[in-house]
Amino acid sequence: MAKNLTTRSENYSNWYNELVIKADLAENSGVRGCMVIKPYGFAIWERMQAELDRMFKETGHQNAYFPLFIPKSYFSKEASHVDGFAKECAVVTHYRLKNDENGEIVVDPAAKLEEELIVRPTSETIIWDTYRKWIQSYRDLPLLINQWANVVRWEMRTRLFLRTAEFLWQEGHTAHATKDEAIVEAEQMMNVYAEFVEKYMAVPVIKGLKTESERFAGALETYCIEALMQDGKALQAGTSHFLGQNFAKAFDVKFAAKDGKLDYVWATSWGVSTRLMGALVMTHSDDNGLVLPPNLAPDQVVIVPIYRNDEQFDAVSEVATELMKELRSKGLRVKFDNRDTHKPGWKFNEYELKGVPVRIAIGPKDVENGTVEIARRDTLTKELMDKTIAADKVVGLMDEIQTNLYDRAVNFRKDNTSTVDGYDEFKQVLETKGGFILAHWDGTVETEERIKNETKATIRCIPLDADEESGSCMVTGKPSRRKVLFAKAY
Amino acid sequence: MAKNLTTRSENYSNWYNELVIKADLAENSGVRGCMVIKPYGFAIWERMQAELDRMFKETGHQNAYFPLFIPKSYFSKEASHVDGFAKECAVVTHYRLKNDENGEIVVDPAAKLEEELIVRPTSETIIWDTYRKWIQSYRDLPLLINQWANVVRWEMRTRLFLRTAEFLWQEGHTAHATKDEAIVEAEQMMNVYAEFVEKYMAVPVIKGLKTESERFAGALETYCIEALMQDGKALQAGTSHFLGQNFAKAFDVKFAAKDGKLDYVWATSWGVSTRLMGALVMTHSDDNGLVLPPNLAPDQVVIVPIYRNDEQFDAVSEVATELMKELRSKGLRVKFDNRDTHKPGWKFNEYELKGVPVRIAIGPKDVENGTVEIARRDTLTKELMDKTIAADKVVGLMDEIQTNLYDRAVNFRKDNTSTVDGYDEFKQVLETKGGFILAHWDGTVETEERIKNETKATIRCIPLDADEESGSCMVTGKPSRRKVLFAKAY
Repeated sequence: MAKNLTTRSENYSNWYNELVIKADLAENSGVRGCMVIKPYGFAIWERMQAELDRMFKETGHQNAYFPLFIPKSYFSKEASHVDGFAKECAVVTHYRLKNDENGEIVVDPAAKLEEELIVRPTSETIIWDTYRKWIQSYRDLPLLINQWANVVRWEMRTRLFLRTAEFLWQEGHTAHATKDEAIVEAEQMMNVYAEFVEKYMAVPVIKGLKTESERFAGALETYCIEALMQDGKALQAGTSHFLGQNFAKAFDVKFAAKDGKLDYVWATSWGVSTRLMGALVMTHSDDNGLVLPPNLAPDQVVIVPIYRNDEQFDAVSEVATELMKELRSKGLRVKFDNRDTHKPGWKFNEYELKGVPVRIAIGPKDVENGTVEIARRDTLTKELMDKTIAADKVVGLMDEIQTNLYDRAVNFRKDNTSTVDGYDEFKQVLETKGGFILAHWDGTVETEERIKNETKATIRCIPLDADEESGSCMVTGKPSRRKVLFAKAY
Repeated sequence: MAKNLTTRSENYSNWYNELVIKADLAENSGVRGCMVIKPYGFAIWERMQAELDRMFKETGHQNAYFPLFIPKSYFSKEASHVDGFAKECAVVTHYRLKNDENGEIVVDPAAKLEEELIVRPTSETIIWDTYRKWIQSYRDLPLLINQWANVVRWEMRTRLFLRTAEFLWQEGHTAHATKDEAIVEAEQMMNVYAEFVEKYMAVPVIKGLKTESERFAGALETYCIEALMQDGKALQAGTSHFLGQNFAKAFDVKFAAKDGKLDYVWATSWGVSTRLMGALVMTHSDDNGLVLPPNLAPDQVVIVPIYRNDEQFDAVSEVATELMKELRSKGLRVKFDNRDTHKPGWKFNEYELKGVPVRIAIGPKDVENGTVEIARRDTLTKELMDKTIAADKVVGLMDEIQTNLYDRAVNFRKDNTSTVDGYDEFKQVLETKGGFILAHWDGTVETEERIKNETKATIRCIPLDADEESGSCMVTGKPSRRKVLFAKAY
């Protein structure tokens, strides 16, 4: 390969790392664990943001912005939350630098903060401290707020998009008058996430509930969507939490009901992050590079001219420009790459690496014959066709490719989902085949912990659509009412 | 006033602070100097972002994202930059908390960073450290990147939107092969800012150059746009910097020209921030509350139903819904406030406070007569009209109000711009009238400093459209070639 990509079968992990960098999605920065999201990667993230933001607004949410810093004491107010989050975090202790006697820049010891500030790892505490002021009566509810923000979690082992010290995300934080309404909200947002991931990212997901030990720190219930990557490992693509009254109690947020009675409000929070970029790359891409679903591709179509002289270039350009205009008028994102600094072969390679769904090549022969060559990134197939039908064909390809990618991922998941009865079989399937494994579990933290320690597999979720079926735990033989979903995970 | 707003003449500063909070734009948080941007305020900021982002993309820029943290040593690489920025900043020194022997959460001394991290006050250093890897040849230029981000500057005296420890902004960072191209870019972005502020915010600005002492730390030239607030103080609404080769040299960013010769690249950076929200509020609003230009108002029109019983409500709603649909089909952002939890009077007050450009009231009498009442927020005038012509009238009002706000601000600025010859006159005008003052200055830092110390007025800019005219400095009598713009400033 001209791209010099490691193949997936050689080393999946290296393939991913190289692809993210070579396709210009992101790179490591000079700051430990923090990435630079490059323009091409950011353009994909922007498309994700735009669709999600629209979906949040259509479900009644408004955006707002809360401080980056959280006073240390805020974390102590919700006991399980501090254990889950406040420990591995960036701590601001000073607010000034100065020149020392040698002219070096040093931290000014005189500028020590009275109370340290934590760079937000998530914003429940600062937001609920604010909600206390915003919520007095049932008229103020529901409060449906979302924030697009950067957050920091001090991860020791980082990987681009999948696990970085700083990442970008959105976090929804809602307050409700009743428990039921909060649960409906948490479920709604899980469904919004699932719809986005399946419809736009073309990544099929399993909706489910987290087990107690995998729940968000401070949640009574965590809903999640789980996707399967091409190496047979699972990736949690989004979570939505029913927080009960935990944060309302911790931050004393009460409301007066219609009858005047005071009660604590009910809460949810939910988020997806730049981690989705990792899921997108790992679900569809191949040994030639990225494969982007048309719904999220910054360029859906690229037109590459082939020519040997100015005369040919002019003739080809005329056809190309006309086609570009027609496609754009039909709502497609089209680029005509008429740079003379690079050869067609280089461009073909580049757009394959970058996952542009459709490539159109036009040369002098095509001008003569009234044809264009259309290449699909997902199937790597080419077709020569009359230029008069090209635009309609390409418009149709957008849906076709989007559907094909989704179907392909569904089939992959089907082929890589196993149902097992015994623990030995479980371990064998996990080691030889990987993927999702459905098995009975006795519902205890101890057994879950034992499986994790012995096999590195975790319960990804208790699928919401799992049939009720009596069975016995594959490890302890104790009774179980439904199978749960296991996998090794990112 | 039911709103209990301090009036501008009573105390302009209190009026501003109260208005920002009461109109639900923003509020102070539990974190010193950091604000919470509330949903209504954020919706206005989102509209600003959307327009600016479109303008940046139309001028060839792409978005990207760089780390929040900057290693301390990066700042030391550009000498004037560190003096300007790295001193008053949030410093991350540790990456972990732990429980001490009393169960209190404390910073873990074992988790001290080898090198402190600065929370970005601006991103030139981290970005130019990255550009070194991105730029090798002239083919990589120009590099036209923008970032939307939060930044932190440890201000001791803060005010909502105008000066906060954390604020939101965009920062453009571009790299060019030639000095001329970089200067053209810096000027272009100043013009983009001016166009946005005038066309969307309806705030007239003076374009100009900063004097040496007011330049951005590390810039060779700073272009700016300056606006005049209703209290006669100036507000810098945006800056665009020509950075020369300073950062390229500090971070060793060279490119090979077509002829193979290596040279340092030329740079610009430019930014506007949530400070624009302050400018928007202070330019147009009055003692009744916010006045929003239609181009940025989250709701351009609100329809308030007036009724005493369900039957009347149904009849009024029918007319209101029809009108809402018609206005929406014409592209307007319209809200029909049919809540029965609040009385019409309360709603009138609320939308006046929130600056909605047009309010439409419909009551039973209107249903009978086929009329609606249309009220303009900018002029506080009402008009009863036939409902069949209402939609077209309201559509026309959007432009009319937008233009009226701009013209009013231009006239205010005209009335509050003085030209003076002597220093005594200067001081007198400054104390009695305030506003912009044009006067000759000898071009020295010493004189500028003296004026600032003696009067608190600063040179806002050397206007780009100033006529060349010989004169003598109002302070020293030394020769001057053009008048410069003075004011007290935010």
